[in-house]
Parts: sequence; structure tokens; C-alpha cells
Amino acid sequence: MAHPFVVVGGDAAGLSAASKFRRETDRDVVVFERGQWVSYAHCGLPYFVEGSVDRLTDLLSLSPSDIADRGIDLRRGHEVVAVDPRSRTVTVDAADGRFEQPYSELLVATGASATTGDFDATLDGVFTIHGLDSAAALDAYLAPPDAYDPARLGDGPVDDDAVANNAALDSPDRAAIVGGGYVGVEMAEALTARGVDVHLFQRSGHVLQPFGPAVADRVEPHLAERGVTVHTDTAVDRLAGDGRVEGVVVDGDRIPVELAVLGVGVRPNTAILDDTDAARGPNGAIRTDAYGRTSLPAVYAAGDVATARHAVTGRETWIPLGLTANRAGRAVGATVAGTPTPVGDVAGTAVVKAFDMECGRVGLVDEAAATDAGFDPVSETITAGSRSGYYPGNEETTVTLVADRTTGRVLGGAIAGRDRAAIRIDTLATAIEADLTVAELTRLDLAYAPPFSPVWDPVLVAAKVVAGNL
Amino acid sequence: MAHPFVVVGGDAAGLSAASKFRRETDRDVVVFERGQWVSYAHCGLPYFVEGSVDRLTDLLSLSPSDIADRGIDLRRGHEVVAVDPRSRTVTVDAADGRFEQPYSELLVATGASATTGDFDATLDGVFTIHGLDSAAALDAYLAPPDAYDPARLGDGPVDDDAVANNAALDSPDRAAIVGGGYVGVEMAEALTARGVDVHLFQRSGHVLQPFGPAVADRVEPHLAERGVTVHTDTAVDRLAGDGRVEGVVVDGDRIPVELAVLGVGVRPNTAILDDTDAARGPNGAIRTDAYGRTSLPAVYAAGDVATARHAVTGRETWIPLGLTANRAGRAVGATVAGTPTPVGDVAGTAVVKAFDMECGRVGLVDEAAATDAGFDPVSETITAGSRSGYYPGNEETTVTLVADRTTGRVLGGAIAGRDRAAIRIDTLATAIEADLTVAELTRLDLAYAPPFSPVWDPVLVAAKVVAGNL
Repeated sequence: MAHPFVVVGGDAAGLSAASKFRRETDRDVVVFERGQWVSYAHCGLPYFVEGSVDRLTDLLSLSPSDIADRGIDLRRGHEVVAVDPRSRTVTVDAADGRFEQPYSELLVATGASATTGDFDATLDGVFTIHGLDSAAALDAYLAPPDAYDPARLGDGPVDDDAVANNAALDSPDRAAIVGGGYVGVEMAEALTARGVDVHLFQRSGHVLQPFGPAVADRVEPHLAERGVTVHTDTAVDRLAGDGRVEGVVVDGDRIPVELAVLGVGVRPNTAILDDTDAARGPNGAIRTDAYGRTSLPAVYAAGDVATARHAVTGRETWIPLGLTANRAGRAVGATVAGTPTPVGDVAGTAVVKAFDMECGRVGLVDEAAATDAGFDPVSETITAGSRSGYYPGNEETTVTLVADRTTGRVLGGAIAGRDRAAIRIDTLATAIEADLTVAELTRLDLAYAPPFSPVWDPVLVAAKVVAGNL
Repeated sequence: MAHPFVVVGGDAAGLSAASKFRRETDRDVVVFERGQWVSYAHCGLPYFVEGSVDRLTDLLSLSPSDIADRGIDLRRGHEVVAVDPRSRTVTVDAADGRFEQPYSELLVATGASATTGDFDATLDGVFTIHGLDSAAALDAYLAPPDAYDPARLGDGPVDDDAVANNAALDSPDRAAIVGGGYVGVEMAEALTARGVDVHLFQRSGHVLQPFGPAVADRVEPHLAERGVTVHTDTAVDRLAGDGRVEGVVVDGDRIPVELAVLGVGVRPNTAILDDTDAARGPNGAIRTDAYGRTSLPAVYAAGDVATARHAVTGRETWIPLGLTANRAGRAVGATVAGTPTPVGDVAGTAVVKAFDMECGRVGLVDEAAATDAGFDPVSETITAGSRSGYYPGNEETTVTLVADRTTGRVLGGAIAGRDRAAIRIDTLATAIEADLTVAELTRLDLAYAPPFSPVWDPVLVAAKVVAGNL
């Protein structure tokens, strides 16, 4: 009997692969997940903490029984600790002991984990936002001890001890968020909604660095307007406290806080391949080709653990995001089932909400990065209306557009505004993946109607300005 | 001395051409406009009637003095009645007589006019929505005689007699809108906002025919929910009334109304070329090439009077819409100034708001039209969320996607929904103009964040389904 297709990791990439595989074939697929949670929306965690999502389990896409109904053999609480590519087996630790599982093909979809840098994350009141248990614990910590509602958890395999410990602690009045990336900005909004006085610390000159300074120039005052104190060019040296966090230390000064959220980075969970000679790429992520194949025979990787090809540079890159994880997993599932399917390039498309401000970015926004990649970047930032000027609700929309002077090709862009701004990044994402030039971009027949867009959409206004400067 | 560049028509295409021309050169440009209004937003008329735009003159983009400041010689009240391509002169009628104006190059940008079919548009209470004077007159008609506020007009060259006559008439209780196209649907919303009981009559089976039946299936119940009585498959035979409209006659029955808005079509204003042998295209529009050149030497045409190349079929088409008029005018201005600039293809991108419902369409949505154009269309309609399912405000979004079975190329699409639905058509517009296949569409790295889009944007969901059926 043939060995099964073995998938390690029960979230976006892993379950997309297993589901697609089972739709295409009746061969067996086994999914090993070291934790208890599977198929959850990582990007929804800030909105649960904020309170705009009622229950933790609302973030689950598929239940274990849904997964079983798809013909997937899901084993939770099963940690793959080693891979032997020669014998094509994985070593699995489970509650009832260790065993070897042979595979025909293997998909490593172990994701990424939040890092904590040099900060003492063992203190009470210090959280990373990674996984449902961390969100549940933070939610419990935010509630006053007499007001925590366990119904918030829904009916899932939550870490009850962590929740109970955090629910028993006094709720915080002031929080430090360390790191002004997506997680930091989303958490600033979430914690403000929970009544906490938020201080956001960003080491470099601007929050949301991948979106470029023009977006940050819209977001930072908006955060301030909503009560968030934004500290840019400010490194947090360390967390202070004994048992529980009591402050952040900045330039030798201690700012008292009772909550610290660390958003200082993520790293790929590559440990199971540490004893193999699987090739690595940027950030140590597992190197994959256009079909998600690693350098090991019959071993694939997909999602936040794997590299991908960048749509603009054509180079190997590591950009862990949700859609591309799902898509790569799905493609590997199809490929292993017998229909070779490219995982697709990544363009680094990302959107983020900061209160009423919507932001998007794609491709190469940073001119230095574009130069490093061999381009001669021309970057312009414009502001244009989101609707016809006379139509109520027209909002200033900022667009940064970057193109290559030599070829005219669109390299990247970023958008910020309050009215349907973020979703407009899809126009640029599509243009970039189609290798359009700026001249071609200026000639796109885009939507125009007073309630939705001015005659010249902000993206087209930016295109005209860049085209004029090439 | 060289003769000037002569432009006929002082709206989108004409003034875009003259403005661009003057930015590129110090040669003279003369713009003849037969009326008094210039540079106004035709697409804003329903929103003025609705009352969401305060003053008629808010719809003006440029004032005559702005235009003069650009170095454009604008002559209002100057009607070009004939063109002599041999002598390169136009004949102009003005208040102080007729004269001949020589030109070096000529741009015909005379736009289009609303048609009235066989309906008696001379009755009081019968309106087309074309031009500021018609909107001003309708606005006056809607106000009770003692409540009309002339401040609504702003300070522009309005037809005062028409306004005064209409303001003096009793305001209507019930309206018939004849034709369920963009204008009909937008006016249904506008008149409802003004407290009028609206009956919308559509000869064919669905409103918004160019958007396809799936969009209409969302819009029609929504219109009904908001109090509009939608009569599909219902032809209005004639308007009844003596002096003032008193009803519409349908299947021999008379439905009493005191207002009728005709949205039964538009036609290109080609009269000034009637005595020339300028080649014509669909609907009698002036045939133009990739640079807006007509078949006559040194004569260009742009905007609603001209044909264009269709981005999907590559064939000559006539789709009068605002952005492409502006863009074609701007391109002709650059070309005449010495920088040959293509006018660009048209994809037929259109978006429309119907109360809370947002709709968009692009390319070939109708399968029969796609077959006629030589394609083998595959069309699928899906419904998917506009946001992550757990995030508040998630709205069902309907997407129709049409592709060619032979090549996989994306041919067209349509969207309807309540949450950022219309603007998503730009993804498809960009994909279509870039000749992407459905497989390529499925691999686009589009925006994902719970407040703005689910992991798989509705456009991607549709792409996956169509790709699976090719």
C-alpha cells in the first residue's frame, strides 16, 4: 500500500493543501498538528482582542469534524520532531509516545512564530499576538478580575490555565506596544477600544515601515487623534518588573505600564528540518521552487515557513502573509495529487486598518530596496480625492507610486485614506503582477462614478505624475 | 502665422485636450462651445437632483477664468455648424454673426445627447438628464412652488426661464422613470430622496442590462426595499397629458404620474461632420484610430462623439463614458502638441450606486456578445464575503466572471454588493487590459485583512471557480 501524503501543520497552508489534495484524489493524507487549534484566522486575533469579534472560536474556519468530513486524517497534539528524507519518514511525538510515519510526499507547513527579541516575555502582562491561546490570555488580562466573561472563549481547546491566571490579575490602565508594524498598529486600535491608554514604540522614524513614509504621515497623526501616543525613533531597552511587567525602559527612563505587547518580528518554524540539508533562503526560511518543492526529494514547503519568488524582483524572498500561504498550500495539494500547479509569486501585498485610516502597499515601495534589486526607481507621492469633489464623503487619498526609469515598469505602491483606500491597492497589485508599465497604467479604464471615484482615480493620478517624470 | 488648434466642445474631452495642449506648447488653441456651460460633471447630475450636492455650480470643475488662465481661448455661445476639411476651416455661428475659422488641427469633442425616442418630451414634467439646465429645471420642478430655493443654482449661466417655469408648477407626487440603465437607477434613488413615489420601467427582463442578470438580481429587490416599484419586461407605450404629463401608458393602461424622466439612450452629436465624408462607426459615432484621428486630414475626435477600440474584442466600439472621454481628449492634446499619445482602449468599465448597493462591470459580461466576438465564453457567478466572515460588516458580494475557454483569457465581469463592491471591478479592469488568463487571475496577490477582504477576495473566488470549469 502506498504511503500517505503527510502534512505538518494544521493551519492555512497545511489544510489548504490537504483539502485540495482530497478534492483531487482518493489517496490518503495525514495532517500532524502539534497544538490543539487548527484552521484559525491569525489575522483576526486583534479584532477578537478589540471585542469586535464576539468569541474566540468565531475565528475558526473549519472544525476538526469538518476536516474529517473532507477525508483528511487530522492528528492534533502530534509534533513532528524530525524528518528523514532518505527513508521518507517523519518522527512524531504524541501523548501516547513517539512513532515513525512513512510518507510518499511531505509538506512542511509549520508556519512562523512571533519573536520576543531580548525582552523578558516570561513576565505577567507581556504578550505576543500569535495563536489563539495568546489572544485568549490577553483578552482575559484586559478584563477586570470580577468582569471576565468565559463565554468569550467559545467552545474550543483553549489553554484554560493561562486564561484563568490572566483573568485573575488586575486589568491594565496603560500599555506599551513595542513595534509599529501591522500587529502593533492593529493592537493599538484594539487596546484603545478596550479602554487602555496606549503607547506605541517604533525604533525607526515611522510606523508601518513597509508602507513608506507617506502612509506613515497619514497614520501617525490619526493614531494620535484617537489617543494613541506614538513614539517614533524610540527604542525600548527592556521591560521592567518583577513577576509582572511594571514599565518599559526607554533611554534609561522608566515609563510605567501594566501591559506590554511585543510586535518585534516573526521567524519561520524550520526546526523539523534542522537535521536535514534542506536549502534555506532569506531569514532562514525553507527554500522552495515555483511548485513549492524544497531541495529534498518529495518534500514540499508552503506558507510562512517557506520562501517564494518575488513578483517584481524575481528573486527569492520571505514575506509571510495569509493569502499566499493559502494559495501555496492549495497549489502543493494539487501538484501532489497529480496536477502540477505553480504556487505563484508574491507581490508583498498588504493592507491594514488603523481606526478610520485604511492603508495598502504592494511591491517595492522603498527606493533603496528597488535600487538594490537593480532598478532605477522613480517615486512620486500624490494626494487626490476618493470621490468626486462635490460628492459627500470625498476623502483625501495618498498614493505613492514607484516605477523603473529604464523600462517604465510599475515596481510598487502604497495608499492611505479613509474612503475605500486599502482595496485600491489591488489595482496596483494586478498591474505589477501583469508587468504593466506606468504608461499602460495611465491608460487603464478604471471605475468612475461620483460616489466611488473621481474621474481620475487616485491611482491614475499617481500614474500620470510618475509617467510625466520618467 | 500658424492657425490655431481648434476644439469644438467645452467639456470633458475638449477641455482635457486644450489643457494638455497648452501645457505642452505655446501654440494657440481655441475652444468653441455652443452653450454657456463648460467643464461640468455630467455624472454628478443625479446627485444634484437628489440634494446631496448643494449647488448646481458645485458640479463645475473649471470656471471660464480658470480656463483663460490656462491660456485657452474659450468662446462660449459659439456653435460650429460646418467643417470644411479641404480648406481646413470651420464655420461658426455666434451672437454677432457667422464667421469662418481656419485651423491647423481640429478636434471634434461635441459629446452625446440624450434621446427621447417616440416620447413627447415637450410636455411639462418630462425631463431627460443631460446637461446642467435639465438638472436645474428638474430640481425646480421637484420643489413645491412656495419652497423653491434659487440658491440651489449657484452663480452660473443657467437657463432662468426654464427654472422659473418649472418652479411655478406643482411638485410631483409620483414619477415614471423610463429606462433602467445607469441614469434610470441613479434617478430612482435621487427622486426617492426627494420624496417622490418612483416607478421604474424597463423594457427588457432586468435593469442595468450591461451588468448582467446576477447584478440585477441584487439591485431589483434592493430598489423595491427602498420603495421603488420596478416594472421589468414592461414597455411604456407613450406619455399621456395635455401640456403637462399626467401619466404613462403601459399595455393600454394609464398609470398616473406627474413626472417622467426619460433614460432611453444617448446618441453622438455628429452633426457638424454631416456634410463631410468622415467615416462612421457603431451608432454613427465618428470613427477614430488609436490616436483619435478621424478619416479626415488633421481632424481628430474624442469623447462621447467618437468610437474607440474595445480592450477585449479589439474591435471598434462606441461606449460613451467619462474617464475615457477625459483620457482621449488629453491624449489628442498631447499628440497635436507633438507627442504622439495613444488614446487607449476602452474596457467598458462602469460603476453605479443604487442606494446601498454598489455595482460594477467591465468587458464582455453578456455571453452572446462574447460569442459574437469570436470567443467561447465560460461564465460563472459566485457569492462571497466582502470581509472575513467573523468581522462586522461582512456583506455578500456577487461576482460574475466570464472567460474564454480556448485561451483562458478573462473577458469580462460584474460585481454587486454593499461593502466596497464597485471599486473591486478595477481588479478585473486591470486584468482585462493586461490580457491576463483566469489561471493568472487566481494567482494574483491581492489585499487581505479582515476589515477589507476575506483571505480569498470575491474576485479570486470567482476566478477559482471559472478556472475549474475551463
